Amino acid sequence: MSPERRRAELVALGVAMLANEPLEALTIESLSERAGVSRGLVIHYFGTRQGLHREVVLTARDSMLRASEPQPELAPLDRLHDTLTRIVQFVRDHRETFFSLVRGAASGDRQVRDGVEQARSLQADHLIAVFHELGLPDSDLLSIALRSWVAFAEETLVEIAINTDMPSAEIVAFLERSVKAVAASVDANLPGPFAG
Amino acid sequence: MSPERRRAELVALGVAMLANEPLEALTIESLSERAGVSRGLVIHYFGTRQGLHREVVLTARDSMLRASEPQPELAPLDRLHDTLTRIVQFVRDHRETFFSLVRGAASGDRQVRDGVEQARSLQADHLIAVFHELGLPDSDLLSIALRSWVAFAEETLVEIAINTDMPSAEIVAFLERSVKAVAASVDANLPGPFAG
Repeated sequence: MSPERRRAELVALGVAMLANEPLEALTIESLSERAGVSRGLVIHYFGTRQGLHREVVLTARDSMLRASEPQPELAPLDRLHDTLTRIVQFVRDHRETFFSLVRGAASGDRQVRDGVEQARSLQADHLIAVFHELGLPDSDLLSIALRSWVAFAEETLVEIAINTDMPSAEIVAFLERSVKAVAASVDANLPGPFAG
Repeated sequence: MSPERRRAELVALGVAMLANEPLEALTIESLSERAGVSRGLVIHYFGTRQGLHREVVLTARDSMLRASEPQPELAPLDRLHDTLTRIVQFVRDHRETFFSLVRGAASGDRQVRDGVEQARSLQADHLIAVFHELGLPDSDLLSIALRSWVAFAEETLVEIAINTDMPSAEIVAFLERSVKAVAASVDANLPGPFAG
């Protein structure tokens, strides 16, 4: 096996371990044991536990971003639907990769956290683009609302897509309804539900 | 100074340090240095760095929960408004306590994370009670939506209440609009904004 191949397999194994265990359980020791290779080899590839965490979490992030890249040729609401559909599918198909990202957000290492944060910002930027194209005016509150909705969606995906057997189409539809509702709630002049 | 008093002061100093630094920067060493006391004294009170983190984060959590305890005699929408008003005020007045909670959620220590998670669940339960009383039917999706909205609100509060000078009343109004919008979005039969 080539060194690159062996390295990629170790990263994939690290990602898989994070499906069931928190980041602190992923160590040079636990990975070398699980892979049946020497500690020295793991150290050779990743240096430290921090280096290992960075590699694993940022690899997971990049697969997620590739899978959810928006299709620029679609109209805004279709693009939103398409992106959310692919994200839900990705979370269902690659539970361990998604969990690696959620775990990475809780890392004690700033580089790991910042890497995950960049992905969240990028997702928020895509949403902001959708609602601008739909005619919502640019505002700090709209950006904050959509950034916060990314945290909302992450929590929803952890709960629904992984712990229940709700059909993917229903999850996508709920995410679509909730993001539209949140974007509309930025405007204090719209009536909104449950008028007080 | 009594031992309880001294211990409480060390906890308060730990909470204050988390306003500007991540959890991993709060160590036996950094706290003893900042407090001008011996490492031995800090170890005497908290044992380990984990023990220190637990004490600091759970103390912050308990102050937040006390400050945001719902007033049961209020009608549901008034109770929601009152609770959110007190939460925003608390975050503005006790920036460091709120940040300690946000940092605690990213702790590598399961006991610290679970402690913060309990507080989120409690906040979500209060919201679920409000919307039940308003007539929304009990459903898994409503619970998940409101739990996810707690993550949304946390992100919004980090962004707005701390980094901007938006008046507290506007922040409260936005949080109210967004939580009502999210609760209504659970029902697939309601029209909702931006109908596709």
